[in-house]
Amino acid sequence: MGFNFNMNFITPDAPIGIFDSGIGGLTVAQAISNLLPYEQFVYFGDTAHLPYGDKSPQAIARYSVRIAHFLKKKGCKIVVIACNTASAWAYKQVQEALGKDFLVLNVVDPAVDYVCSTFAKYSRMGVIATKATVNSGIYRESFKKINPKIKLNSISTPLLAPMIEEGYFNNKISQTIINNYLDNHRLLGIEALILACTHYPLILPEVQKYYKSKNVEIINPATCVARATKAVLAQHNLLQTNVCVPHHSFFVSDYTEGFEAATKIFFNQKVDLQHYPIWETAE
Amino acid sequence: MGFNFNMNFITPDAPIGIFDSGIGGLTVAQAISNLLPYEQFVYFGDTAHLPYGDKSPQAIARYSVRIAHFLKKKGCKIVVIACNTASAWAYKQVQEALGKDFLVLNVVDPAVDYVCSTFAKYSRMGVIATKATVNSGIYRESFKKINPKIKLNSISTPLLAPMIEEGYFNNKISQTIINNYLDNHRLLGIEALILACTHYPLILPEVQKYYKSKNVEIINPATCVARATKAVLAQHNLLQTNVCVPHHSFFVSDYTEGFEAATKIFFNQKVDLQHYPIWETAE
Repeated sequence: MGFNFNMNFITPDAPIGIFDSGIGGLTVAQAISNLLPYEQFVYFGDTAHLPYGDKSPQAIARYSVRIAHFLKKKGCKIVVIACNTASAWAYKQVQEALGKDFLVLNVVDPAVDYVCSTFAKYSRMGVIATKATVNSGIYRESFKKINPKIKLNSISTPLLAPMIEEGYFNNKISQTIINNYLDNHRLLGIEALILACTHYPLILPEVQKYYKSKNVEIINPATCVARATKAVLAQHNLLQTNVCVPHHSFFVSDYTEGFEAATKIFFNQKVDLQHYPIWETAE
Repeated sequence: MGFNFNMNFITPDAPIGIFDSGIGGLTVAQAISNLLPYEQFVYFGDTAHLPYGDKSPQAIARYSVRIAHFLKKKGCKIVVIACNTASAWAYKQVQEALGKDFLVLNVVDPAVDYVCSTFAKYSRMGVIATKATVNSGIYRESFKKINPKIKLNSISTPLLAPMIEEGYFNNKISQTIINNYLDNHRLLGIEALILACTHYPLILPEVQKYYKSKNVEIINPATCVARATKAVLAQHNLLQTNVCVPHHSFFVSDYTEGFEAATKIFFNQKVDLQHYPIWETAE
């Protein structure tokens, strides 16, 4: 695209870069698109390595940095790490790799900021996430910086992402699995629950149903990061001001028809995925 | 290891190479070890790309060929493709890459041979497998070659592997998921069911429980491929004749403690995994 990488030359017309381990991050793209309908974005799903949830921190950081470089080269004005696991293990590395002036957002901090500012009275929080996200302690760390008094319990719920990817939600199987996870004693007495994986917004109604008689706030980090993206772009005078129909691009590191069909689950329409063999391409 | 690649120079002392997309293939290693306790093996789990079940045929073939070369270089006398999905999409490519004289076994043909020879009267078979295995039509093709009269119905059961990997078996969740899959009308009236994924031997008791009142033979391809390995090695005078305690090696392309802990599920003991970064290493 011949785009100049110096942040001073980036214009509001430039696209928003979004990446995830797969197609689940399209829930974040959807949230950004809902809030900023004129913004164009370039999406990258690392389907060759999906899921990140059980991979090593070193591998996740390496993959993320490479993809972030790709998005920067595509002329993106900001890179949004849509994946909780990559936010946990690769945010600092991505920021360092792209340069300290380049705009990078992770999906964790905006959710924590939102919770701390909107529900300041809350003291007991729950997080459900992949194993890698829970093991990172990223939510605990992020809460600690803003409100160290919050008691946070995170549990890993590794079966939820594959369950959702296979289209199991709002049925007997999903309700059995969800109830089994939420029955965990470590989530007893929580006042809010963060759905800390891009797939989980799809089971929001079932989680709400589980907590229907209890007063538990359900937090979707996708909407939080969308608001943060808007705020950061506005602060840097980089919000798209032209009223236009954006032409998004969707890249994946491994292409199958199954991935393309599943885009419909995460985005409100089926989209064309372009295969970009990033792992067979010289940097 | 300085091993000579000419098959004429391979000795019975050489190890058996086994590979899978992850650690599930250890069920095959276990079956081989039970039948051939003095054989040493070199195992490779491609944990960087696991699971293969939803990846593209092209990617699966590329990964498999590279791993097979690694095992050949380690001096293996035979390469056993322990993964049904890789057997489906990469067997021919692996055989071609290693040379036509090199011994390569996939996990599909031995199971089909066994079914056709042992249960010759059967005419209605069921297969449960990953999406990629089902889409490949490999079992249909393999049966067609031996007994074209067999009516075969394959259904993809993509939630079973992650479910088992997370330790969900013999409980309410696994029984709900298993029953839901086996209730599929396409499996009605089958006389035998092939568990066509390395993870599935772990739910054998639950599948047997489901079929307890019906006369359905449950086929575990791991034991079939173990018998085939013994037969092929014997035929080539390559069976280990020394009574010894073998020292196996277990390599993975991405290392986490979680993978190592899970080896216990698939092998009857926890084993030490060695990280071999094959995808960051020049061929």
